[in-house]
Amino acid sequence: MTVDEAERLDTADPLAFARKRFSLPDSLIYLDGNSLGALPKAAPSALATTAERQWGQDLIASWNKHQWIDWPAQIAARLAPIVGAKPGELLIADSTSVCLFKLLAAAVGARPGRRTIVSQQANFPTDLYVAQGLAEMLGLQLKTVPGEQVVDAIGSDTAVVTITHVDYRSAAVHDMRALNDAAHAAGALTVWDLSHSAGAVPVDLNGCEADLAVGCGYKYLNGGPGAPAFAYVARRHQAALRQPITGWMGHAAPFAFSDDYAPAPGIERLLTGTPPILGLAALEEGVRLIAEIGVELLAAKSRALAQFLRAAVAEAAPGLPCVSPDEPAPRGSHLSFRHPEAYAVVQALIARGVIPDYRDPDILRLGLAPAYLRFEDCRHAAQALGEVLASGEWQKAEFHHRSAVT
Amino acid sequence: MTVDEAERLDTADPLAFARKRFSLPDSLIYLDGNSLGALPKAAPSALATTAERQWGQDLIASWNKHQWIDWPAQIAARLAPIVGAKPGELLIADSTSVCLFKLLAAAVGARPGRRTIVSQQANFPTDLYVAQGLAEMLGLQLKTVPGEQVVDAIGSDTAVVTITHVDYRSAAVHDMRALNDAAHAAGALTVWDLSHSAGAVPVDLNGCEADLAVGCGYKYLNGGPGAPAFAYVARRHQAALRQPITGWMGHAAPFAFSDDYAPAPGIERLLTGTPPILGLAALEEGVRLIAEIGVELLAAKSRALAQFLRAAVAEAAPGLPCVSPDEPAPRGSHLSFRHPEAYAVVQALIARGVIPDYRDPDILRLGLAPAYLRFEDCRHAAQALGEVLASGEWQKAEFHHRSAVT
Repeated sequence: MTVDEAERLDTADPLAFARKRFSLPDSLIYLDGNSLGALPKAAPSALATTAERQWGQDLIASWNKHQWIDWPAQIAARLAPIVGAKPGELLIADSTSVCLFKLLAAAVGARPGRRTIVSQQANFPTDLYVAQGLAEMLGLQLKTVPGEQVVDAIGSDTAVVTITHVDYRSAAVHDMRALNDAAHAAGALTVWDLSHSAGAVPVDLNGCEADLAVGCGYKYLNGGPGAPAFAYVARRHQAALRQPITGWMGHAAPFAFSDDYAPAPGIERLLTGTPPILGLAALEEGVRLIAEIGVELLAAKSRALAQFLRAAVAEAAPGLPCVSPDEPAPRGSHLSFRHPEAYAVVQALIARGVIPDYRDPDILRLGLAPAYLRFEDCRHAAQALGEVLASGEWQKAEFHHRSAVT
Repeated sequence: MTVDEAERLDTADPLAFARKRFSLPDSLIYLDGNSLGALPKAAPSALATTAERQWGQDLIASWNKHQWIDWPAQIAARLAPIVGAKPGELLIADSTSVCLFKLLAAAVGARPGRRTIVSQQANFPTDLYVAQGLAEMLGLQLKTVPGEQVVDAIGSDTAVVTITHVDYRSAAVHDMRALNDAAHAAGALTVWDLSHSAGAVPVDLNGCEADLAVGCGYKYLNGGPGAPAFAYVARRHQAALRQPITGWMGHAAPFAFSDDYAPAPGIERLLTGTPPILGLAALEEGVRLIAEIGVELLAAKSRALAQFLRAAVAEAAPGLPCVSPDEPAPRGSHLSFRHPEAYAVVQALIARGVIPDYRDPDILRLGLAPAYLRFEDCRHAAQALGEVLASGEWQKAEFHHRSAVT
């Protein structure tokens, strides 16, 4: 995996144009787009327009004049094809965790008498925490099992199965179709977390008959730090589904100020408070860019980057175990490697301007954001990783100090 | 109330400097700062720095390098004195409605066996909707009564009393001390909504022994459209209180990624998802400005503006009934008038560049944001209102068309 090979692949890359749409520092090799996606070049001016012209000049009239009130649905409509949803099935709202709480609660409410939420032990922790909080509040059972046992854990008491589509550690992908079928056969619903999927790997919510889903705006969708999240409700469930955080924006007539809550007829019933317009302005640029590129090109590039990086790491750091699946088909858009001192290795790489991600307890994660990553970035990162391991520079004390956020 | 009198008051106004810190269009008289506060001049550059330098250049490292992780607590610490809270008692998070859901649920959880939530019939609708949603989810009773009967409605089954401090229609202020005392005497907790209070009228949460509170970031705090909200938990309740939307950011060790949720020791346990950094960057400027001015000056200016506006409207539109309290002490920072065609009157005023607010069914609301409103604005608005009513121009058909957001 030489410099020449990387250059040849970058030159032939049909997505080379897309990188120019992002603002990326020259000094960094950024392999953490799955924690925080890069800044679309169009985002700062969208923020400036929203703040200075709309908020500053048109003030309250902007809700109508600039259609702020419609932004959660408009951005969602742009995002819908990226995850295989129809326009009216998706909405932007809150954070991923709050959306998950709403949908889990709605699913439990739609399956009265069933008292169990099924999930995977290695699910993303916040997903488990949210399920725990809901279970505690309602006196439900949260049953977590190893990933390969989830299907068998679904039973007649299961109200809902919640799982993350792409495993945040290993990048293993759950079979969405099979799990939906198993849940439906038992009369249960599914809630998918697409945080590590949307914008990088193909997702077909409709085709797989998924019931409900949530996902993150600030990873592969490049919506900015703490961007609003998205939530999906299949059309067939929308009329019956009730979520519990019933604020005015989810009301059928928010400005009639009637005494009693009545849910909006469609997906808007998921809304609660006033939409976060500044966050939405940035997210819109991220979603627009990903939607323009299209998920097929992004997924193909992701696979090619992973294949190249895997080979480059095998050459540069022989013996470092990769914990991600071999084949691209059931794999997300990152590769994870195991090292007992992964935290310090990550810090040593950061000191060299290569930004991977550490995940407790021993995972070195290399995220491959297909919209802006180059093959040369992967080659450079593999080389740096090989040098860090061979030289033992990760053993320096300075690389073992833990920061607030890891 | 002549032009000369207004000019004399504006010249003598100790808050005249503050208006210069806001970006306001010359063409508008803006009396709707209690729906959406004006743009602080510092906000656009704060947004640009956060987006371009922090997100764009430092990417994921910004969580430590720029202390993004601490912003919810840092901004809250700046806000705390504005509402009579201690620094560790306040947090910025989510939307007002989501915060209210969390605190109501937490309060109910802290009073096991009690099954009633007490509120006011004329409470802000979204507050009632949120209480309805929670009550339905948990099989509780929501008991709403006229404002003057709230104290008597509190009983041995009452878990929590929730009320809005300043009435969004009339600007009447609830006696925080008296209601807290009554709730505590019955063993219940209180959750205050400070949306129409914070940054305009004095609030002393600690001094009144309030238990819990929420409030809005985009009204008198000028945090921008859909700004994150704030939540207050009195220190004495923090260790025991559990809120149900248990996401990773409220975990004692968010990045340890442990399987089980364990709440953060302090107010941070209210957090759920990743903080909305762009929204926080704008809110910080709004809060900083209000905190620098100080609530005493703001409250004094609010009272003076209201006194002046009331007299000016009485002169210019004699006979128009004012539904706000006469005395400034128990009154928020707006004056409301009743007109059977208030919606059309508001539209006619907007056509003249005067921006009031309409509230169903017959309320014309004139918001007095003390940080940037001038006496001359009030005089101009009163004159325009008088002319609109005298001429009957509000009867034009164009002023009767209802927009999406009113």
